Amino acid sequence: MFQDKLILRIPGPTPIPHRVQQAMNHPMIGHRSGQFSKLFADVAKRLKPFFGTTQDVYILAGSGTSALEMAVVNTVGAGDEVAVLVSGAFGERFAKICERYDITAHRLNVPWGEPIRGEQLEAFLAEHPQVKAVFATQCETSTGIINPIEELAQVVRAKSDALFIVDAVSCLGAVPMEMDAWGVDIAVTGSQKAFMLPTGLAFIAASERAWNVIDNRKPQAFYLDLKAYRKSLAEQTTPYTPAVSLIFGLEEVCNMLEEEGLENIFKRHELMRDMTRAAMKALGIPLMTADEFGSATVTSLDPQGKFDAEELRKILRTKYNMIVAGGQQHLKGKIFRIGHMGYCEPLDVITVISAIEMALKEMGVDIPFGEGVKKAQEVYINHV
Amino acid sequence: MFQDKLILRIPGPTPIPHRVQQAMNHPMIGHRSGQFSKLFADVAKRLKPFFGTTQDVYILAGSGTSALEMAVVNTVGAGDEVAVLVSGAFGERFAKICERYDITAHRLNVPWGEPIRGEQLEAFLAEHPQVKAVFATQCETSTGIINPIEELAQVVRAKSDALFIVDAVSCLGAVPMEMDAWGVDIAVTGSQKAFMLPTGLAFIAASERAWNVIDNRKPQAFYLDLKAYRKSLAEQTTPYTPAVSLIFGLEEVCNMLEEEGLENIFKRHELMRDMTRAAMKALGIPLMTADEFGSATVTSLDPQGKFDAEELRKILRTKYNMIVAGGQQHLKGKIFRIGHMGYCEPLDVITVISAIEMALKEMGVDIPFGEGVKKAQEVYINHV
Repeated sequence: MFQDKLILRIPGPTPIPHRVQQAMNHPMIGHRSGQFSKLFADVAKRLKPFFGTTQDVYILAGSGTSALEMAVVNTVGAGDEVAVLVSGAFGERFAKICERYDITAHRLNVPWGEPIRGEQLEAFLAEHPQVKAVFATQCETSTGIINPIEELAQVVRAKSDALFIVDAVSCLGAVPMEMDAWGVDIAVTGSQKAFMLPTGLAFIAASERAWNVIDNRKPQAFYLDLKAYRKSLAEQTTPYTPAVSLIFGLEEVCNMLEEEGLENIFKRHELMRDMTRAAMKALGIPLMTADEFGSATVTSLDPQGKFDAEELRKILRTKYNMIVAGGQQHLKGKIFRIGHMGYCEPLDVITVISAIEMALKEMGVDIPFGEGVKKAQEVYINHV
Repeated sequence: MFQDKLILRIPGPTPIPHRVQQAMNHPMIGHRSGQFSKLFADVAKRLKPFFGTTQDVYILAGSGTSALEMAVVNTVGAGDEVAVLVSGAFGERFAKICERYDITAHRLNVPWGEPIRGEQLEAFLAEHPQVKAVFATQCETSTGIINPIEELAQVVRAKSDALFIVDAVSCLGAVPMEMDAWGVDIAVTGSQKAFMLPTGLAFIAASERAWNVIDNRKPQAFYLDLKAYRKSLAEQTTPYTPAVSLIFGLEEVCNMLEEEGLENIFKRHELMRDMTRAAMKALGIPLMTADEFGSATVTSLDPQGKFDAEELRKILRTKYNMIVAGGQQHLKGKIFRIGHMGYCEPLDVITVISAIEMALKEMGVDIPFGEGVKKAQEVYINHV
C-alpha cells in the first residue's frame, strides 16, 4: 500500500510544522546585519519562559551534545570530581565528556527504566562530598523516564555546594522546567525535540551561581566558551557564525508556542503520554516506566519476549511509513519507543496506536484488537 | 486542545503533497518559453492513461465547471435537445449550462443516493430520440454515488447517435475511466480532486466521434473553444495564458501517480471506501448509497435524525481541526460527507473515524464506541 507521508514518531527529530518550514525559507541575510541582530536578540529573550529563568538563554549552532560539553568545560576541569546521575544512555554521556577532560566522574547508576530519587542522591553526595558539580538528565530518552529534577535540586542545594547541571534535551519546552524556582544551575536543550525545528541548534542557560564559577575559570575551549556568548548576546549577536535559517524558524516556533501557551503545551503532552500508556496497557504491552515517572515526550515499551520489537518496527516502517525508535545499548533490538513530542497532536497518537495494533495482528500476536485505540479515545474525551 | 494541522476530508480540494508543493515553488518562467512548452506537452501526454484514451488531453486554466461548459458549447447549441442524467446536485449543473445556451435539456432524474441504470436510460432515450448528447456524472459528489458509466455508454451507443459526455470531476484519477474502451465521447475533470493539486486547472479529452461534431460547429465561445486548444497543443502550447505554477505541480503529481501505478491507486481508494463504509456500519450510521455504487472517493452519511450532522461537523472542526463536508441543496444540514481521495491514505481514514467516534460520544450519541476504528482496521489488514 502506497504510504507517502512519513510518520515520524521518534523522540527527535520531530516533524516540522508547515509554518516553521515556511519561515525557514526566508531569503538568506547577513548574520552581522541589523535585521539579524534584532531577530536573534528577540528569540533569545523569548526562550526564557521555557527555561523558567530570568537569566539569558544562549543559542549555539551545534547539537545538544555540544551544549552538554559547554556545560562541563565552563564549570569544571582536569582533576575535579563530579557526580553523574546515570539512569540510561544519555546520563552516561555527561560522564564520558567529563572523562575526556580528565575530570573524575562518580556515577550514581540506577537500573534503566527507574528514576533517581532524592534520598539516593543524598546518600551518594555523602560518599562524595568533594564533587563540584552534579549532572542529571531530566528525560532519559533511552527509557522514557522523567527524573524528579526539583527534588534532586533541593538535595544538591541542601547537602553540597556543587552546581546542579541538567540535560533537558528531550523534554524542555514540553514539560515544566523551573531553573530559578527549583535551583537548577545550568539547563541545556536542543532544537529538534519540543522546539519542532530541524537539528542544528542547542540552547543553554546558567544561574547567577553558575556564572560566579564560570567567571573565575578559563575554560579548555574556544567555540564552547560560554563567556564569549554572553559578551556577544549583550551586543545582540553571536561570537561565531549562527545558523541563520534555523533562527528564522525559531521565531515562528516561538509564535506557535506562545499562541498555544506553556500550560496548554504541557497538558497536551501529558494527554498524549496518558493516551499512549493507557493504549499500551490495554494491549498488554509492558511499559518500561512507572506511571509517576513516565515522560510526557517519549514512551518505552518492553515486549518481554511476547513479540519481536524489531519485527514490529520493520512492519511499521515498510507498511505504514511510520518510524518509532528502537532500543539503545543493551536494549537494542529488545524494546521500542514512541515519540509524542513537539509537532504531535492527540489524533497523531491514535494513528500510531492503530498502526501498532494492525502490525501486531499481522505478526500473529494475541492482543485485544481495537482496544488500544478505544482506550486512547476514552482518555482523550475524558481529559478535555 | 491545540490542533494545528488542518485535516481536510472534503471531496475536494484535497491536501497537497509536500513534493507537489515544492514543485509549485519553482521560480516563475515565461509561458511562451521553450522550457514551458516542453513541460506542458509532457504533462498533457502523461494525463492520457487516467482518461483511458489515446486522444489528446487538454489542460485549461479554469475550474471544473469551465470544462463542463466547454463540453457543452463545443458539441451542441441553441435549439438542440440533450438528455441530462441527474442523480444529484452536480448532474443538475449540466442542465443549467445547457439552458443558458437555449439548449433543451431533458432531465432523467433519480432520487439522490441512487445510480442511474442502463435500462432507465434506454427507456428515456426512446422517449427522446432526437437528443444530440447525453450528459452524465460519474461520481455524483453530493451523494457519493458512482454511476455505471460503462453500462450507460453501451446504451447510448446502441440506442442513439448522441454523444456521451461525462463529468468525472470528483473521481477521475482515483477510479477507472476507459474513454476509448467504454465509448465515452468527452470526459472532464479538475485539478483539486484525485490529482492532488490546488484548484485552478481542468482537464478535458474528446473522442474522434466527438471531434467530428466539434469540427463542424462554430461554438458560441472564445476562451472555451476546444479547437483553439487542439491547435495550440499541436504546437506544445496553450491558446491563452496557462497557470504555470500548477503545471509545475502537475508534473510532480504525474511522477507520484506513476510511481504508485494506476491499479494501486484504484485499490487504495477502494480500500479507503471499504474502511469508511465498514466503520460507519459498525457505528450504526446509515450510508446514503448501496455498497455496489458507493464511490471510492467520497462517502455520504445520513444520520436520519439519530444526531445532528451539523453539530458533528462543528465539533470535528473546532475540536479536531478536521473538515468533513455537509449536505447540499435539500440535504443541507442533514447529512455529512467524508472525502477520502487524492493525497489520502488508509491511516488518514482511521483518524477520521476516530474523531467521529469521539465527537459522537461527546454529543451523547449511543454508538458502540471503538467499534468503528476496529472494523476499519480489520478491513485494512484483511485487504492488503
